[in-house]
Amino acid sequence: MDIPNKEDLGSLWQRYAPRLLADGVIYRDMKEVEGLTQTWDDWCGAWCKVAARYEALGKKALKQKDRVSAGEWLWLASLYYHYGQFVFWQNFAEKNRAQRRKAEIYTLAAPHLVPPAHRIEIPFEKTVLPGYLRLPAGKGRHPCVILIGGLESTKEESYLFENLCLTRGVATFAFDGPGQGEVYFKIPMRMGFEKAVSTVIDYLERRKEIRKDRIGVLGRSLGGYYAPLAAGYDSRVAAGVAFGAFYDFDQWDYMPPIIKDGFQFVTKTQSWEEAARYLKPFTLEGVASKIRCPLYILHGDQDIIIRTEQARRMAREARGKVEFVVVKGGNHCCHNLANTERPKMADWLARNLQR
Amino acid sequence: MDIPNKEDLGSLWQRYAPRLLADGVIYRDMKEVEGLTQTWDDWCGAWCKVAARYEALGKKALKQKDRVSAGEWLWLASLYYHYGQFVFWQNFAEKNRAQRRKAEIYTLAAPHLVPPAHRIEIPFEKTVLPGYLRLPAGKGRHPCVILIGGLESTKEESYLFENLCLTRGVATFAFDGPGQGEVYFKIPMRMGFEKAVSTVIDYLERRKEIRKDRIGVLGRSLGGYYAPLAAGYDSRVAAGVAFGAFYDFDQWDYMPPIIKDGFQFVTKTQSWEEAARYLKPFTLEGVASKIRCPLYILHGDQDIIIRTEQARRMAREARGKVEFVVVKGGNHCCHNLANTERPKMADWLARNLQR
Repeated sequence: MDIPNKEDLGSLWQRYAPRLLADGVIYRDMKEVEGLTQTWDDWCGAWCKVAARYEALGKKALKQKDRVSAGEWLWLASLYYHYGQFVFWQNFAEKNRAQRRKAEIYTLAAPHLVPPAHRIEIPFEKTVLPGYLRLPAGKGRHPCVILIGGLESTKEESYLFENLCLTRGVATFAFDGPGQGEVYFKIPMRMGFEKAVSTVIDYLERRKEIRKDRIGVLGRSLGGYYAPLAAGYDSRVAAGVAFGAFYDFDQWDYMPPIIKDGFQFVTKTQSWEEAARYLKPFTLEGVASKIRCPLYILHGDQDIIIRTEQARRMAREARGKVEFVVVKGGNHCCHNLANTERPKMADWLARNLQR
Repeated sequence: MDIPNKEDLGSLWQRYAPRLLADGVIYRDMKEVEGLTQTWDDWCGAWCKVAARYEALGKKALKQKDRVSAGEWLWLASLYYHYGQFVFWQNFAEKNRAQRRKAEIYTLAAPHLVPPAHRIEIPFEKTVLPGYLRLPAGKGRHPCVILIGGLESTKEESYLFENLCLTRGVATFAFDGPGQGEVYFKIPMRMGFEKAVSTVIDYLERRKEIRKDRIGVLGRSLGGYYAPLAAGYDSRVAAGVAFGAFYDFDQWDYMPPIIKDGFQFVTKTQSWEEAARYLKPFTLEGVASKIRCPLYILHGDQDIIIRTEQARRMAREARGKVEFVVVKGGNHCCHNLANTERPKMADWLARNLQR
């Protein structure tokens, strides 16, 4: 069931521009897409048009054996397909096409990224959890951080953040769980995301390049609920980061329409009311208090999706050492302050995983 | 003698925004500086204000031993001091302070960049040529590209381009020559820049990490004159790139006021007329035809500083294999298309220096 977008397109550009740029969108390309987007109906097609240009450029570079450029441009193409499907509930068929295209093109980019991203498919129930493992320079075993997306972010979107971890000596494993990216087509958002994370840890523990006692988790936005959840349930988690804290759905009414639409989509429910009922049991109550590992909680005091109170509650209940960072002027996940707040999270992870 | 800026500030922001972003300025910071800049008099101070914030952040990170972040933030501080002095002829004292600050702060950043930048001072006449050597991953000898700035760009500004070369296996040496950055205070712009480049090659040949027969040169903007000049004079140059071609000063009248002011500044002359006379002998006539190595010539057909005819003449006269790239819609040095045109130059360098 398609969900017509209710929000004003102009203000959406304003709201999302910092995030787009922080995740790697080129300013000039963003302005081009903006110019091509008269109404919401144009959104997905406009992004895909620019994506296709980079896809062609990347494939040409691949033919010429310019591997580094090929990796970068194909990654950028994948990112633009990603943003094509992002917040686009207008037309599920078109959205899902862009979602699949993103994943396909990233697969082409992966071996040429520096360092390369190794695609791994971990058996999970009747399907697999697809993810990408990237290893820092140097021989021997490395600490590793599992990167968890949110309501709409997926494993392909964390490339630049992975680079921050990798230059600091931390391996990365970004994956799609239930309700996310490739897995959404098999399993909707549902209770028990922690089982997916534990399955990933089972896998990583067997990799000879990884220090099994030094595996952390970082989750972004809705992942700011999943990461603490996993840390509460699985004592093997050595450090956790809520990149934008998320405690529960008590704040449903506070959320902007576009986010409610998103939850309706990933839960495969038919209305906001049904989605809200479905999401009620998703909470860190009774779980946050089981977290014993160090926890970094990042929150922007201008977050219009998640109230700072949720971050505060998480900080209060966790039992390990808590680094609680509320940034003045920061928006959701502090995307508007990405070039200072993201490196700080990577620094903290390196410090806490390299002991 | 201070030179009041004659151009409209608003249109300058329009003209330079793509370049600022391509060189690493954060969009949000650019907008902040723009907001702080009511008149030209505010320009340098506004940039320095934001620079000081990153300087403090970088120094704090250094104390906490968060070395990678320290390197990045100190580099960014240096870049903002750079743009503070950039096109700022209003007040020489203020400009020169920012110029020196840029160099100082970059010196602090250098050891913490990934890979590190090693400061080297090569004796030259009665002074030194300061530069930074960066080496790609891997043991053994590497090809190397000498990066040459332009009228106003200096060794500190090429960091992101260096990264493109380094990930492709090419070492980089960025330096200030006569009229540029730190050397400007000792030697103004003058004939014979090729001697500085040859002095750098003499030095690099003695480094055990460098393949002496695989040394290239790349020059940006006015450096698009210096690099071919060096390739014409020194047969040791194995490949050359004019990152924005520049043949001679026949085009003086075509140049915008702000560029003429810049030439008056770096030549230490007292008027445009005197500068124009001084610059007349600077030409590739009789030199371009001596270039035997492969030459990549990049030019934007919307360049309002240097006519495409100058690039065409260079392409016609050079005697080695020429890759002549005129980009439709490209501005000066194609800074507005940096994310496609810069990697292509790095690819070409890697291909031509790694044979």
